[in-house]
Amino acid sequence: MRGAVLHSPGDVRLEQRADPTILKSTDAIVRLTATCVCGSDLWDFRGVNPVNQPTPMGHEYVGVVEAIGADVATVKPGQFVVGSFAASDNTCQFCRAGYQTHCVHREWIGPGGAQAELLRVPLADGTLVATPETPPAELIPSLLAASDVLGTGWFGAVAAAVGPGKTAAVVGDGAVGLLAILAAKQLGAEHIIAMSRHESRQKLALEFGATDIVTERGDEGVARVKDLTDGLGAHSIIEAVGTQESMMQAIRSTRPGGHVGYVGVAHGVAVPGEELFFSGVNLHGGPAPVRRFLPQLIDLIWRREIDPGKVFDLRLPLDQVADGYRAMDERRAIKVLLTP
Amino acid sequence: MRGAVLHSPGDVRLEQRADPTILKSTDAIVRLTATCVCGSDLWDFRGVNPVNQPTPMGHEYVGVVEAIGADVATVKPGQFVVGSFAASDNTCQFCRAGYQTHCVHREWIGPGGAQAELLRVPLADGTLVATPETPPAELIPSLLAASDVLGTGWFGAVAAAVGPGKTAAVVGDGAVGLLAILAAKQLGAEHIIAMSRHESRQKLALEFGATDIVTERGDEGVARVKDLTDGLGAHSIIEAVGTQESMMQAIRSTRPGGHVGYVGVAHGVAVPGEELFFSGVNLHGGPAPVRRFLPQLIDLIWRREIDPGKVFDLRLPLDQVADGYRAMDERRAIKVLLTP
Repeated sequence: MRGAVLHSPGDVRLEQRADPTILKSTDAIVRLTATCVCGSDLWDFRGVNPVNQPTPMGHEYVGVVEAIGADVATVKPGQFVVGSFAASDNTCQFCRAGYQTHCVHREWIGPGGAQAELLRVPLADGTLVATPETPPAELIPSLLAASDVLGTGWFGAVAAAVGPGKTAAVVGDGAVGLLAILAAKQLGAEHIIAMSRHESRQKLALEFGATDIVTERGDEGVARVKDLTDGLGAHSIIEAVGTQESMMQAIRSTRPGGHVGYVGVAHGVAVPGEELFFSGVNLHGGPAPVRRFLPQLIDLIWRREIDPGKVFDLRLPLDQVADGYRAMDERRAIKVLLTP
Repeated sequence: MRGAVLHSPGDVRLEQRADPTILKSTDAIVRLTATCVCGSDLWDFRGVNPVNQPTPMGHEYVGVVEAIGADVATVKPGQFVVGSFAASDNTCQFCRAGYQTHCVHREWIGPGGAQAELLRVPLADGTLVATPETPPAELIPSLLAASDVLGTGWFGAVAAAVGPGKTAAVVGDGAVGLLAILAAKQLGAEHIIAMSRHESRQKLALEFGATDIVTERGDEGVARVKDLTDGLGAHSIIEAVGTQESMMQAIRSTRPGGHVGYVGVAHGVAVPGEELFFSGVNLHGGPAPVRRFLPQLIDLIWRREIDPGKVFDLRLPLDQVADGYRAMDERRAIKVLLTP
């Protein structure tokens, strides 16, 4: 099969790779209908994370089950499925508590490389969710979004305790941040502040439910959020970047007793204890347990109540994967959908 | 009046100070029945916090209202009252959300110096809670505990989302940590792990409801908590120290999706973002909104359902305040009650 491999910062190539096979009786092989480039892939592409060897890339996927191991019971060949970037048994105590990304048997999908034609999904029963039937083409982007960025934005909003009557603010205008706005709207937030200085992203933020746009960052961004909340700060902040600046902006924009839901993969962040202590905020986040939300998200998409697929503003065939990375790296595209 | 003043690290003296007076119409003057030395006073006494000028000390108090300002409506002279270390209006949005320590009109009691005969309490209506009647002498220590250490331990347990069926663990065996055990028991925890290597404190921990004692600290302490929780980590950890080691021990002992409630005043703490991200824990804490819990705590004490006053294992007249500081500094006493 063909699959994307990162050789060094900036050098991603579509190459011939061995077809994945069933290794364990709980595995499934999925033929991918669509995959995409993640903001977190850029940490590798930009060399922020070291790349020490040729590395298969990608962890977001939808497709059709091609083969299953002997112990797989809930999905079968021919079914269209959505999975998350963390394989989980969905039965352990952590899974049952809704933290499937911390499953005691967790396996990350990433090393398998989902920017490819075929993907081995471990723990298929606990990881994959089948759609009611084969979806029409127009739903593919939204279902693909559910695989990671929608589920991650949704978890950010849940971790930030978004709810009716509350003011939410979102730091970060990537796909996850934009879909956190969509999630905040669905969860009933009264005001939703999008922090963005890019016109195309502001437009999508407003489509998804943002009520206010703040273009300032850092301390000025904090001051603007305070201005919009009677000086009190927002109830709920979703942090969807992962830098020191974004994390501190999130904490400082939140009122005492409010919640920061952080889903930007932290890089070089250190939260100062004294400031955190006297802030009185709640902090929660991490790698999103997308599997917790998948049935609900698929249902919302299936009923056309949400259209998260709008974040894909560039669609390319898989053999142009390198162009896709460059477009996202240069922020010419919000998110790139790849068709094998 | 006489009041304790810290002149330099290790040098605390009982001195003649001016009697406090009503400065605002919302003030009350309270003649103190009992006061005490707080673990957080030791940060100053030990010179960890700089002491740049003679500083009145103390922020925990119970006593009898001696005078009130013209606008005070809910307490009156002659009533016995308990207050917290943060004066609050109890009407602003933060107060109504239960975060009175972040009241928009907050004033810290500390600068007034509660290790004294008289104390000015700002915002008396929102800060002081009167007992049903003048309490018998045997309830004084417990009511004094409610003023800070009980309320703080209780908030730690609430912030750590302690509840029925859960395993809680407490890092720190000072008065706050010990009373967090009492709180966890009241809140229905199934297992309560006390982390302590001091025999007298272990004994009190068991009296307050601890089911297990762990003497190890740091990584070994984390490993022992994992051992006691089927390798999963505790659901709820109360951090009641405030150091880097204690904070990391708390985070690492908590299962994904579990809660750390931190009430040790952070000193020199920096929480590494990457580790926090992948831990999946919830973090909440800060200066405890004791006022939120005071009515409930006074009621539990009044009905003899809890006896938090047991943390006072040394009682001294106020003129021996310096001995009290030394006894706590050298960990010869858990907590020192002072009688003016």
